[in-house]
Amino acid sequence: MFELGVVYRNITRADRAATERLAAFGSATVHEAQGRVGLLQPYMRPIYAGAQVSGTAVTVLLQPGDNWMLHVAAEQIQPGDIVVAAVTAPCTDGYFGDLLATSFMARGARALVIDAGVRDVKPLTGMGFPVWSRAISAKGTIKATPGSVNIPIVCAGMLVTPGDAIVADDDGIVCVPAAQVAATAEAAAAREALEAGKRARLAAGVLGLDMYGMREPLAKAGLRYID
Amino acid sequence: MFELGVVYRNITRADRAATERLAAFGSATVHEAQGRVGLLQPYMRPIYAGAQVSGTAVTVLLQPGDNWMLHVAAEQIQPGDIVVAAVTAPCTDGYFGDLLATSFMARGARALVIDAGVRDVKPLTGMGFPVWSRAISAKGTIKATPGSVNIPIVCAGMLVTPGDAIVADDDGIVCVPAAQVAATAEAAAAREALEAGKRARLAAGVLGLDMYGMREPLAKAGLRYID
Amino acid sequence: MFELGVVYRNITRADRAATERLAAFGSATVHEAQGRVGLLQPYMRPIYAGAQVSGTAVTVLLQPGDNWMLHVAAEQIQPGDIVVAAVTAPCTDGYFGDLLATSFMARGARALVIDAGVRDVKPLTGMGFPVWSRAISAKGTIKATPGSVNIPIVCAGMLVTPGDAIVADDDGIVCVPAAQVAATAEAAAAREALEAGKRARLAAGVLGLDMYGMREPLAKAGLRYID
Amino acid sequence: MFELGVVYRNITRADRAATERLAAFGSATVHEAQGRVGLLQPYMRPIYAGAQVSGTAVTVLLQPGDNWMLHVAAEQIQPGDIVVAAVTAPCTDGYFGDLLATSFMARGARALVIDAGVRDVKPLTGMGFPVWSRAISAKGTIKATPGSVNIPIVCAGMLVTPGDAIVADDDGIVCVPAAQVAATAEAAAAREALEAGKRARLAAGVLGLDMYGMREPLAKAGLRYID
Amino acid sequence: MFELGVVYRNITRADRAATERLAAFGSATVHEAQGRVGLLQPYMRPIYAGAQVSGTAVTVLLQPGDNWMLHVAAEQIQPGDIVVAAVTAPCTDGYFGDLLATSFMARGARALVIDAGVRDVKPLTGMGFPVWSRAISAKGTIKATPGSVNIPIVCAGMLVTPGDAIVADDDGIVCVPAAQVAATAEAAAAREALEAGKRARLAAGVLGLDMYGMREPLAKAGLRYID
Amino acid sequence: MFELGVVYRNITRADRAATERLAAFGSATVHEAQGRVGLLQPYMRPIYAGAQVSGTAVTVLLQPGDNWMLHVAAEQIQPGDIVVAAVTAPCTDGYFGDLLATSFMARGARALVIDAGVRDVKPLTGMGFPVWSRAISAKGTIKATPGSVNIPIVCAGMLVTPGDAIVADDDGIVCVPAAQVAATAEAAAAREALEAGKRARLAAGVLGLDMYGMREPLAKAGLRYID
Repeated sequence: MFELGVVYRNITRADRAATERLAAFGSATVHEAQGRVGLLQPYMRPIYAGAQVSGTAVTVLLQPGDNWMLHVAAEQIQPGDIVVAAVTAPCTDGYFGDLLATSFMARGARALVIDAGVRDVKPLTGMGFPVWSRAISAKGTIKATPGSVNIPIVCAGMLVTPGDAIVADDDGIVCVPAAQVAATAEAAAAREALEAGKRARLAAGVLGLDMYGMREPLAKAGLRYID
Repeated sequence: MFELGVVYRNITRADRAATERLAAFGSATVHEAQGRVGLLQPYMRPIYAGAQVSGTAVTVLLQPGDNWMLHVAAEQIQPGDIVVAAVTAPCTDGYFGDLLATSFMARGARALVIDAGVRDVKPLTGMGFPVWSRAISAKGTIKATPGSVNIPIVCAGMLVTPGDAIVADDDGIVCVPAAQVAATAEAAAAREALEAGKRARLAAGVLGLDMYGMREPLAKAGLRYID
Repeated sequence: MFELGVVYRNITRADRAATERLAAFGSATVHEAQGRVGLLQPYMRPIYAGAQVSGTAVTVLLQPGDNWMLHVAAEQIQPGDIVVAAVTAPCTDGYFGDLLATSFMARGARALVIDAGVRDVKPLTGMGFPVWSRAISAKGTIKATPGSVNIPIVCAGMLVTPGDAIVADDDGIVCVPAAQVAATAEAAAAREALEAGKRARLAAGVLGLDMYGMREPLAKAGLRYID
Repeated sequence: MFELGVVYRNITRADRAATERLAAFGSATVHEAQGRVGLLQPYMRPIYAGAQVSGTAVTVLLQPGDNWMLHVAAEQIQPGDIVVAAVTAPCTDGYFGDLLATSFMARGARALVIDAGVRDVKPLTGMGFPVWSRAISAKGTIKATPGSVNIPIVCAGMLVTPGDAIVADDDGIVCVPAAQVAATAEAAAAREALEAGKRARLAAGVLGLDMYGMREPLAKAGLRYID
Repeated sequence: MFELGVVYRNITRADRAATERLAAFGSATVHEAQGRVGLLQPYMRPIYAGAQVSGTAVTVLLQPGDNWMLHVAAEQIQPGDIVVAAVTAPCTDGYFGDLLATSFMARGARALVIDAGVRDVKPLTGMGFPVWSRAISAKGTIKATPGSVNIPIVCAGMLVTPGDAIVADDDGIVCVPAAQVAATAEAAAAREALEAGKRARLAAGVLGLDMYGMREPLAKAGLRYID
Repeated sequence: MFELGVVYRNITRADRAATERLAAFGSATVHEAQGRVGLLQPYMRPIYAGAQVSGTAVTVLLQPGDNWMLHVAAEQIQPGDIVVAAVTAPCTDGYFGDLLATSFMARGARALVIDAGVRDVKPLTGMGFPVWSRAISAKGTIKATPGSVNIPIVCAGMLVTPGDAIVADDDGIVCVPAAQVAATAEAAAAREALEAGKRARLAAGVLGLDMYGMREPLAKAGLRYID
């Protein structure tokens, strides 16, 4: 499936404005809004708390212990992109550090999502360049074997196609296919509007049991109360 | 063992005042004070650092990917409770977020301990509602199958009976049976009083080897020094 | 291989001044500077973010669930040392807390690296005593069976000889053999000098592809660009 | 919860005849028959394939790296028992080997279920003494600290009360509370009778879609077929 | 990315004859032959040793704890197919047992590859129906929420498109895109022919160092021999 | 610590006759006999059950995804050796298959112990060449970067020096330093002689409690019996 040794220069990015809107909703709301699909596996964690971003995917397929293609990917970055990287075999090496982050930021990248390790966590935190990764490791990598840039990849269990929208925060990372970004942003906005009212009622002490009308379906499902 | 589809409304909570005292000691001291039993497994981690709480357990048994019973549990919460939730099979889904936290806080809950995933980490941190969980995940859950509330459950390897005292902080989570809370609080206070003196002597450079009289038992156990 | 029940009192520590220099470079640069060897496995994590230290290793081999030898090790600590501890079988118990940290600090220790669990994370953070560990657990330990102090040990997959230099930060932990510390510090300084210039050029938008002359080797390796 | 240092000599075992019946059904059918509760976590694996047993639980709570209580438990074994053992902290040491198995067999034990490691796998296989464990390890244990025998324990995430029925095979291990063994055996027999007929129809090419009448509920749930 | 609630009835299967050829080569040779891509992650293991199969993929996307779509998939099976199943979130439940296997065999299925758990391992072994899974668990599943059949899925980290060829044996599982099956079979045959000669020379004591001409490149790469 | 790019041709192997004796005792007895040290971590598993071997270690340090040094190691094998291989970073790739096994067998190797993956499990089983590994994977490796042969390595958490004796069976793998092999073989023989008598008494129904005189120490340790 995965073509090695190629760089696709022309990819169709999701609509910029709609993609920008997704960041404010966060990964949980976006995940719900697109029908509970698209989430990367939860072993992916941010290197520091609090970042919340969205952007269009530039994808990278890397070889184990080899970060050569991240340099190749840098040239394909456009402002507003998020680089999404996978490796052909599980690897925890530190593929990415402050020098590459400097280059990525200069190109306009918003973040990196990488199913491998990263290093220079302290400088990256200082620079404010957010990274989601499976590991942190001081171990560097070599530059010996080509992978690919901008092919469809599987990152942390999810298929990511170049140009898809990516939303990432403390809760995780969601991939939204380019064609669904606008609709998903609408659905997320609608969901969030609904939640504001619910939040106020719950804060006032109303129970979800009543607010959502759960008592009858629970009784039908056989729930019994015992005093 | 685990009865499904029932909610026990009347549970006997551990003594409130004694339970309140436990928070200040923290999980490590309380664990020692009750004889080194009662600790949940260490894969349970706080979603933010620094919280330290105690409270009485309202227990919840959940179905995989289904958080219906958390809504049912909300109604059973009394001020000073900590909700302790387990799932019938390992699951990392995000069972709990800021809406449920709003409801739990309105009912007087102190914290949530859940052997599954949670989401809305950033809002929860902002609200100051502490959660200990096995995972963080943006993946939501459905409301389809009843579990139970206020039955004895196994959470992260430990049996928790409704009404038991729970102590949680950065070091982990300890369960103290309701009948032992007062005695455990006494033992913890005694232990802490002892430690204050030890701390001062160690800070002054006294060695534990001397302070605890370890040199002779070490020699008896065969320890040899080689120059 | 591992001798049990012995304490070596006279060890040859790496050169103090050269060891001190290593902290500022950090684990990633030091790892590169000594030829990409010496890194402990990345499951070892700091208990709080931001600490960056170097020091000479006092090694400890512990028994499962037994921290007796940490007290024995305290006496062997000299200012500038880092205690490096391993256990004879995988164990997540909390071997170390604020009392031992008080003692270690009084002796001049810089940090603890332990392939096991620790507790009292909040007080340790407050005291500013950095620890790298495989787990955090409130579960205490006993003092029943001797291990050893200042023998060569394997900690998180790496052989550490007493007196070796240790460098630890958010990226991980590196061990530098005593005989190589001066040369490694030189190499790290040279590497860092090079990186400063590179960072400026990358920030200005120069691509790594051009700065490192990668285009030709990539083409030779068969990389194809597709429009 | 867990009382240390005690041995309960008089326990109420599940009905012998009903317990014996359970072995033939296997863990999957018994798990279904009692309402999908009671299963130990699936990391527990048999040391050799093909064994299928049932028996009444003699429970053991062990200390990490210490198998003393297995010797204490041996005396409490009656013919038809299965020893079920847990440890107070995760441990992979080899707690059990061919000598203890010889003793257990002489007492009439049917099997061992242990949430820790075992050794002497080859001799145990030769003796035909089945063991389900979380690990295999040549590392032996000491005999230094008492645990308990015949208290309720949590083994691989499941509460096991002394005298409960245990069913174990290649699919896993199920615990059936003593009071429910007869009813569960009935339900398992009924379930198995039903399955025989289903198996024949499926073998003849009938689809589950038709045999179970799933087509309508699937359509109601929104499933669409696309040609 | 992943469309829920749909069944594609018309898929293009890889060439039958070429697909049949792949089984004899095994997963390692086929993986090499198609350029070292296509391998599912190695946590997938056969439920019994020795099976070696190839077939065309019928794909299934399942919900956690819900095996409804395996019944839907049965109808889409044609002789020579291998069912490849993924779940929308990590799950170890036993989705598949001897009844479904009876149905799948009646339809002509060769095997099941499932990134979840299975049960009835002993009957399945007796029936000779091979399964590769991530877990074995007696825990059953419900039939409540539709997933999809014959959409592209990610199974154990690999993208599998309906109709792709699948090769599985004790070494793992490889996916070969339908369009590449014939070429891959040719390359595998060529590779195997080469290996036969090599095997004979190695068995006669010729070193790989000489047979592959490695001595010079090793010297160039800096390898030093020390007596 | 670990020197890269070197091959030591002259190593001092443990006494051949004493090393040969160790196989019959097995890893558990040898581990006990040398004082409970030397065991590799239990995640190392045999690729097939029943093999039990001993031999002298030829050590190999490999690069991730690169098996070049196994070819270099082949030349250093002498009859009776066991190749012990580690990788500089965690890796599950299949480093070894039937061609290399053919070469190793032609040189007289007894087994391979590798802290990485292997493939060709079925042919290796057929050839009777035993392998202990951390993973099984069809993924092959490249030959690009030198590691080392016959330097001290850390394999699965244990330091292995070239020439040490290795004992491996279904229970795991033990490393015995060359200088201690004869003494360890004596101690193992003594231990085994003792066990034969114990086994007979236990089979006759004598309890370990009585045979080992445990009742008094248990009472002293506070164990209470409750009727």
